[in-house]
Amino acid sequence: MTEPQTQAQDALKRFRNLTGKIKHYEEILGVAFWDMRTGAPRKGIDLRSEAYGDLASESFRLSTSDEMGELLAQLTQPDTLNGLGRVDRRLVEETQKEYERNRKLPTELYREYVVLTSQSESAWEGAKADNDFQGFVPYLEKIIGYNRRFIELWGAKDTPYDTLLDLYEPGMFTADLDRLFGELRTRLVPLAEAISREGDRPDTSFLVGTFDKEAQKAFSKFILNEMGYDFDAGRLDESVHPFMTGLNPGDVRITTRYLPDDIMSALFGTIHEGGHALYEQNLDPELYGTPLCTGTSNGIHESQSRLWENMVGRSREFWHRYFPELKKHFPGKFENVSAEAFYRAINVVEPSLIRIEADELTYNLHIMIRYEIEKMLFNEGLSARDLPEVWNAKYKEALGVVPPNDSQGVLQDVHWSGGAFGYFPSYSLGNMYAAQIMDVARVKLPSLDEQIGAGQLHPLKGWLTEQVYRYGKSLRPAEIIRNISGQELQSSYLCDYLERKYKDIYRLK
Amino acid sequence: MTEPQTQAQDALKRFRNLTGKIKHYEEILGVAFWDMRTGAPRKGIDLRSEAYGDLASESFRLSTSDEMGELLAQLTQPDTLNGLGRVDRRLVEETQKEYERNRKLPTELYREYVVLTSQSESAWEGAKADNDFQGFVPYLEKIIGYNRRFIELWGAKDTPYDTLLDLYEPGMFTADLDRLFGELRTRLVPLAEAISREGDRPDTSFLVGTFDKEAQKAFSKFILNEMGYDFDAGRLDESVHPFMTGLNPGDVRITTRYLPDDIMSALFGTIHEGGHALYEQNLDPELYGTPLCTGTSNGIHESQSRLWENMVGRSREFWHRYFPELKKHFPGKFENVSAEAFYRAINVVEPSLIRIEADELTYNLHIMIRYEIEKMLFNEGLSARDLPEVWNAKYKEALGVVPPNDSQGVLQDVHWSGGAFGYFPSYSLGNMYAAQIMDVARVKLPSLDEQIGAGQLHPLKGWLTEQVYRYGKSLRPAEIIRNISGQELQSSYLCDYLERKYKDIYRLK
Repeated sequence: MTEPQTQAQDALKRFRNLTGKIKHYEEILGVAFWDMRTGAPRKGIDLRSEAYGDLASESFRLSTSDEMGELLAQLTQPDTLNGLGRVDRRLVEETQKEYERNRKLPTELYREYVVLTSQSESAWEGAKADNDFQGFVPYLEKIIGYNRRFIELWGAKDTPYDTLLDLYEPGMFTADLDRLFGELRTRLVPLAEAISREGDRPDTSFLVGTFDKEAQKAFSKFILNEMGYDFDAGRLDESVHPFMTGLNPGDVRITTRYLPDDIMSALFGTIHEGGHALYEQNLDPELYGTPLCTGTSNGIHESQSRLWENMVGRSREFWHRYFPELKKHFPGKFENVSAEAFYRAINVVEPSLIRIEADELTYNLHIMIRYEIEKMLFNEGLSARDLPEVWNAKYKEALGVVPPNDSQGVLQDVHWSGGAFGYFPSYSLGNMYAAQIMDVARVKLPSLDEQIGAGQLHPLKGWLTEQVYRYGKSLRPAEIIRNISGQELQSSYLCDYLERKYKDIYRLK
Repeated sequence: MTEPQTQAQDALKRFRNLTGKIKHYEEILGVAFWDMRTGAPRKGIDLRSEAYGDLASESFRLSTSDEMGELLAQLTQPDTLNGLGRVDRRLVEETQKEYERNRKLPTELYREYVVLTSQSESAWEGAKADNDFQGFVPYLEKIIGYNRRFIELWGAKDTPYDTLLDLYEPGMFTADLDRLFGELRTRLVPLAEAISREGDRPDTSFLVGTFDKEAQKAFSKFILNEMGYDFDAGRLDESVHPFMTGLNPGDVRITTRYLPDDIMSALFGTIHEGGHALYEQNLDPELYGTPLCTGTSNGIHESQSRLWENMVGRSREFWHRYFPELKKHFPGKFENVSAEAFYRAINVVEPSLIRIEADELTYNLHIMIRYEIEKMLFNEGLSARDLPEVWNAKYKEALGVVPPNDSQGVLQDVHWSGGAFGYFPSYSLGNMYAAQIMDVARVKLPSLDEQIGAGQLHPLKGWLTEQVYRYGKSLRPAEIIRNISGQELQSSYLCDYLERKYKDIYRLK
């Protein structure tokens, strides 16, 4: 090898070590995070948050260190970069972007923020349980303040809020989202109106009742197994807000929550998180231990959770196969109910208060409300203490319902307590990606519906692994969707899918 | 302030930050360790161990960094050291000792060892379940090899094994242990012989049966509450080998294991770990976030677990109060059994195979065997593959029993798989410390027995907090025992206690 080649080899090796160490710290932080959400004793939280903050800021410090800067300067030399393999090149580019962003934040500011959000997620749990929004305002004000400060330091894009959006779905900004949400509104609001005006409302009476928790747990596990979720590389626990965390591809955890009077909440929550988990369990071993070893964006991640939850889990074929199994798990329930009746019931369209329990159609309206409120917070200076008023007004306007209290209103989601402003749009992007991906899947897997109807979910999982999961972050979201469909993200696939599905269920012409 | 004072103040501040960061990393590592032992998915263990190793070696690197060396050099200047408060002085001395020890190990060697022991604890779980000692030999050989290498690097004290002993009970070496174990042997072996020759053996037939797991769990929790264990600052889980981990004083966790055919295993295991936990939950807030915020040594720690397990939990007074509660938890069991009969039954003396289920008297023989084997490993070059033979021969000689398989023999304890050679003597030291401490407690709390008999365990907990718990590592083990009893550690208190207790139970003259 020539000397420059040797130097590049050496730089690459040090770079992989350094980014690998950051990835490892993130993994250990992930364990601590999971632990805080699934049962860490409350009296230990404040000290734990300090410890968590110390490690998170060390990871942050490494990502912005002079060593990182020097290695990136070497590796981004055109000659060097072009000589790298596809994965290494992507690793350099991704790390460079993080580096540039993180260099603009003082480490101490970042550490304070990590400690704050770590404590405030626990405070949010308490505030939600006690319906105490006012008690939570001081946390929220601080978190919003930090985010405004971050935007100043990073620099506003077209609008300040765009800077936050870029954290979750790189390349998607308010201009795109305004257009996409506008298209959804144009086609979905009339559909929702037609349904409520002239639709044949499914009978949902048999969904009311009490459902044994252990049976709910057993059925959730059964379905996860059917999906191909590997319990030797994961586990299912309970938390206030369901989540998935991919610590490493051999340890991808799901949480859910069981409601005694609602069979659907835990079940679809589990399938949703299970979809996320399939993504993280099926990453290519080539990526293990690198920061590319995770989903490529929140939008693509949500496409997989929403695809499994709705397009598979709320499909007619799925329940053709699994309704008899459900009946077995809940003896005495659903005795005179047909699979078709059950399918229609779980797809009832109804304006409701809680996002994660919303039907597929109105779900996007819940997201739109949050998107509009986040724009107001960062582009128009809305204050935290005014959130309940704005929230309730928007729910009344868009969905015609008003939360009876803040627990079922502005306090329902964990996201803001963790500082995740700009995340919510990912859910609707996920719905759109999912519909576009499924449109191709039906062409490539011509027997897909029959397979689902026969409980053969593995061909779909295999195809998604090939097309999406294995690449992790080594392909960008736009590359993923273009490779699969030959197009950019469109809203039309989701609208077509929802029209087809709901016109059938509601027997509209 | 003068300039040197300002410099010292500044050094102290930096020193507290640096040691605080190390403590925080240890806390987060503790969460990951607890997680690996209580249900982390098996497929994630190898990658997790790498991540764990990276963070552990960063913590190690900080403890041996040039910055640490410079700060210690400044703070150990006589003038500076004498100007520090008691806690800071102790923190400097303790850190200096660690620094000198750790500086002798290359970080990479340490990292390899952490990854190895992290993986091998999981391998041990498998080997124990499958009774596969041969499959575990490669791990054990490597771990022993690393420890031999560490001894070389650290330098052997009187004997190589002494160097390991110093890790667990500073100031206690083979010369002390040979003497103390010798005294125990001289007094306890004749006692055990007299019991087997002429003792009135308690009826234990009613301990045989099957005991509902949920009832065992409920009773364990009930007793922990009675002891004053704070469930808002801890939790009780299950693991293959019971342990306690004090992550911070607000998060002190216990694990146990429930055997369906043995009511005593989980119960006394829980009380044992509960004793450890009381120590860690009741540390002085002054110590929070510093490396002094933990028990002062393994021997003193075991004194608290063994004190609660045996001197409280296996006492006549305790069961006078709690036997009716036990009966309530297990309806239909123990119907014609008196509290006195139960007390005698749970104190039956019997040579047995499993250390953690041994009676108080023969327990020390289990420890002696391990102590002798560890001396052979490090002072006489015994090889890992020969362990089962030596183990079985020693059990035959000392206890007259031979394990039917390695799972119940050499594979029974977790310690060696984690590299904890030199730990076992702590248990017998703990028994001796405990007896010496209880001797004083009976003087200082004249109604102690009546209180225990009335279920008032808090006065004892309060006194132990005052005398032991709150100090954490800010007093040395020798200071603790001297402050309490005015003496060094003696074997006689334990021997007196055991003679008194067992002569009564076995109705010996």
